[in-house]
Amino acid sequence: MTHPLFEQHRATLEGALNAIATRGYWSAYAEMPSPKLYGEHAADAGKRAFEAHLGQRFALEQPGQTGWQGGERSPYGVALEVSYPVCAPEALLAAAQAAMPGWQALGAAGRTGVCLEMLARLNAQSFELAHAVMMTTGQGWMMAFQAGAPHAQDRGLEAVAYAWREQSFIPTRAHWEKPQGKNPALVMEKHFEIVGRGVALVIGCATFPTWNTYPGLFAALATGNPVIIKPHNQAILPAAITVRTLRAVLAEHGLDPNLVSLCVSPSRAATQALARDPAVRSVDFTGGNAFGQWLLQHCPQAQVYAELAGVNNIVIDSTDQYKAMLGNLAFTLSLYSGQMCTTSQAILVPAGGIDTDEGHKRFDDVCADLARAVQRLLGKPEVAHAVLGAIQSADTLARIDQANRGELGQVLLAASALDNPEFPAAQVRTPALLACDAADEALYMEERFGPISFVVKTADTVASLALCERLVSQHGALTVGVYSTREDIIDAATAVTWRGKVALSINLTGGVFVNQSAAFSDYHGTGGNPAANAAYANSAFVANRFCVVQRRRHV
Amino acid sequence: MTHPLFEQHRATLEGALNAIATRGYWSAYAEMPSPKLYGEHAADAGKRAFEAHLGQRFALEQPGQTGWQGGERSPYGVALEVSYPVCAPEALLAAAQAAMPGWQALGAAGRTGVCLEMLARLNAQSFELAHAVMMTTGQGWMMAFQAGAPHAQDRGLEAVAYAWREQSFIPTRAHWEKPQGKNPALVMEKHFEIVGRGVALVIGCATFPTWNTYPGLFAALATGNPVIIKPHNQAILPAAITVRTLRAVLAEHGLDPNLVSLCVSPSRAATQALARDPAVRSVDFTGGNAFGQWLLQHCPQAQVYAELAGVNNIVIDSTDQYKAMLGNLAFTLSLYSGQMCTTSQAILVPAGGIDTDEGHKRFDDVCADLARAVQRLLGKPEVAHAVLGAIQSADTLARIDQANRGELGQVLLAASALDNPEFPAAQVRTPALLACDAADEALYMEERFGPISFVVKTADTVASLALCERLVSQHGALTVGVYSTREDIIDAATAVTWRGKVALSINLTGGVFVNQSAAFSDYHGTGGNPAANAAYANSAFVANRFCVVQRRRHV
Repeated sequence: MTHPLFEQHRATLEGALNAIATRGYWSAYAEMPSPKLYGEHAADAGKRAFEAHLGQRFALEQPGQTGWQGGERSPYGVALEVSYPVCAPEALLAAAQAAMPGWQALGAAGRTGVCLEMLARLNAQSFELAHAVMMTTGQGWMMAFQAGAPHAQDRGLEAVAYAWREQSFIPTRAHWEKPQGKNPALVMEKHFEIVGRGVALVIGCATFPTWNTYPGLFAALATGNPVIIKPHNQAILPAAITVRTLRAVLAEHGLDPNLVSLCVSPSRAATQALARDPAVRSVDFTGGNAFGQWLLQHCPQAQVYAELAGVNNIVIDSTDQYKAMLGNLAFTLSLYSGQMCTTSQAILVPAGGIDTDEGHKRFDDVCADLARAVQRLLGKPEVAHAVLGAIQSADTLARIDQANRGELGQVLLAASALDNPEFPAAQVRTPALLACDAADEALYMEERFGPISFVVKTADTVASLALCERLVSQHGALTVGVYSTREDIIDAATAVTWRGKVALSINLTGGVFVNQSAAFSDYHGTGGNPAANAAYANSAFVANRFCVVQRRRHV
Repeated sequence: MTHPLFEQHRATLEGALNAIATRGYWSAYAEMPSPKLYGEHAADAGKRAFEAHLGQRFALEQPGQTGWQGGERSPYGVALEVSYPVCAPEALLAAAQAAMPGWQALGAAGRTGVCLEMLARLNAQSFELAHAVMMTTGQGWMMAFQAGAPHAQDRGLEAVAYAWREQSFIPTRAHWEKPQGKNPALVMEKHFEIVGRGVALVIGCATFPTWNTYPGLFAALATGNPVIIKPHNQAILPAAITVRTLRAVLAEHGLDPNLVSLCVSPSRAATQALARDPAVRSVDFTGGNAFGQWLLQHCPQAQVYAELAGVNNIVIDSTDQYKAMLGNLAFTLSLYSGQMCTTSQAILVPAGGIDTDEGHKRFDDVCADLARAVQRLLGKPEVAHAVLGAIQSADTLARIDQANRGELGQVLLAASALDNPEFPAAQVRTPALLACDAADEALYMEERFGPISFVVKTADTVASLALCERLVSQHGALTVGVYSTREDIIDAATAVTWRGKVALSINLTGGVFVNQSAAFSDYHGTGGNPAANAAYANSAFVANRFCVVQRRRHV
């Protein structure tokens, strides 16, 4: 059983299926915001589409609407003043459940085709989405475009590809014929129906409202489930645009648009009540440990896919490209002011220093040189603003102040406030770089979200590796890096990351950064340490979102 | 990367892979205990091998042994008097963890090959295992042979096939080359390592010590995990034989035998402490709701795959084969005295009766005719003993007495005790058949494990279907059956089982029974209702038992 949209987007799906099987470089959606790729007027049209939302009510025609809610505060200081429908959760749940049988009846190919169409439509809105992501999260423009639009779409497509692959293995029917010796065989006809688990709740975060939402959204949809998106209250607009587009695609193809809805939540308690509703059968969550652990403990009726806090770290043993190493690290620490779940927080350096192509560097040399590398990278204001973006939350600003006051360790480089001439009210901060001893665990052994990193003095590289393993196993991590000219150290780091179950980047000195993960090639998370109980994306991310219900009868 | 054992058993694996893709009839291990299939002396040799265990200490050379424990009481009244090593759980856990890196290094193909060799060796021991299963569980001989040996091995192989399929999708390495316009491409080499989550605890049940243990055991092993089997204290011998064989296969191939161990547990508290150990990363459990729910709530460090209680049921609307229907149901209720997790407990019949090929049958007619069908089936003692086996537990005997006293509903057919001349001390009971009104929910709406079934009087078939859905959704079920000559009723039943997520058998009147599920074709459980949160077997049963840990570096 196929579907016109499945056929229409077959090449995209086949590209994605090939990519997840080989995990080499591949992308379905162009990452450069170029007129050649997106059309001559796409940039202007997208900006206008974004601006048209400002100061308006964002109508979605969802059931059970009781009012409007706004309140997004742009980190760039831009007045957004969009308000969104507030709908009774029970009405959204009931409508989602009512939409489910039609979605199930469409079959895996039909659902896959519709999801591919949704992604194509979102791709055509990339500029609009990029502005929405930039203005709600504080990301720089290029990052907002890439991570917020094509890369997020790639991650969504990746989930659709895994979901299709798993579902395509389920035969629709089987002829079962069991020989009975001299007697007639037992013969049965069996049918196998793919049935989604039920309503999926996808809870977004404030910093990556699309990139961290699309994998769960599309994994759940493709496997037969209705989805309610509960965006972070500071980053609603990208989710609202997404929901409107998905509802339009559904309606255009004769499907119930209430399969996808936006739930703007007035309070944490309301979100908790929704997450515990017996009708909610899966929750995808990106955010802090407190709410994430609450979900894991209090929603036994649902599969919970959670990405939480961690302490990403780098082990520096030695390098034959000292300058390039420092430059690479400086960019990692600066990009989006360290407000990425993959940014390195602890840089583990032996007390005795490290060997480099520029001779031996003492611990203090490494600290000073890394601080200088950050300053050099951010020396030109236009580069600094493009890289740093703005600080998303008041909590992060407070943490930066705390670091600057020396309360989190010796200040190697204080964070400084920059003025962004384009956005005078933007909260811009350069990274704070701190030093501390490995024994000062209270300082660096919990996530300090934002542009706050520690050069941690360890006894030696063996101690660094042991510390790395403990950080990953006990506190979680999405990324670990190692710099060494010695293969035995790299092998030891590899073994550490196998035991800790975390991705390892080795000797990054060029245009790839430890905090970047490329869809279709890099797994984002392993699902095996406290930072995340699931990965983007693999079979485990999709296989338990649906059940197979069989029926059998004699022929 | 392949392995000699992978090559040796390639045809078996390919057969299994084809079977899980098509889910038609297939089996790797012969289900008939025939000398032609198992060898002229296999039956005798197996019986002697079983008898050689009796009254002996079952040595396993496991670490941390502190003593011996026995105490299995055979439902057939045979003196077993086998004692098993009691080992400190911390010693078993440490040894299991120490065995893990070598198992990981073997790679997916190597692990798959070793698992296939283990299954082949277990198959060669089928007679020995069958006697052990029969004498510990009370199953009749043929069932003990089939379900205890080849069918259990098939279920184990099925899990290995799913595990191999998922792991085979993970490329060992990838070449990643991202174009950079006019600049040189970014090029990286990436490696992907499959890493098991950690120690798997597999907790067996008293009635199916191999059939319900092998799926989890082999799913965990094949995906890179060490396994500790904690058998039910009344059914240790089949697990002990299995563990000894697996340890021998490991040792013969230069692998650490402590990868698989037997944990005889002195108390529930000791098992709970083991299940909560941070080193235990998955638990497979078959058994009652109390302990299963405890595991689900108290072992957040582990993936828990649980098969619990349920209320399987049959909706009877009408039939054009009345006698055959009654015969089919009588066998289902009688087989192994209803001590199967798949046995029907509630048979829903309209108050107004049903239309049949023998004319209209009133509710009371159906009750009486079903009681007579059971009596007819069990009329010959040799048939009765072969079908019924013996009652496994004192709790079940007490429940039967309760039913006979009329405390669970109107007695249509009292259970009677039979003397088994071959096993004079065996506790043999025929099924108790009760009637009650649908309103008497306290009687039939919880699992009454054993040969206790209810003919439940409903308003009509529509009410039966609604009741079926409620039973499945609220109390769980592994099986539902429907009898109807009307396709609209069958369609409605189909929709009910989609919503309830339970397997449906339609109009079974021949040699297939609702309580039987065939490996490679019938999914056992859906994972979607309270009776089980996982199925034997599908991708979800294996995909989250391992992580993929990547490393990347510039070429």
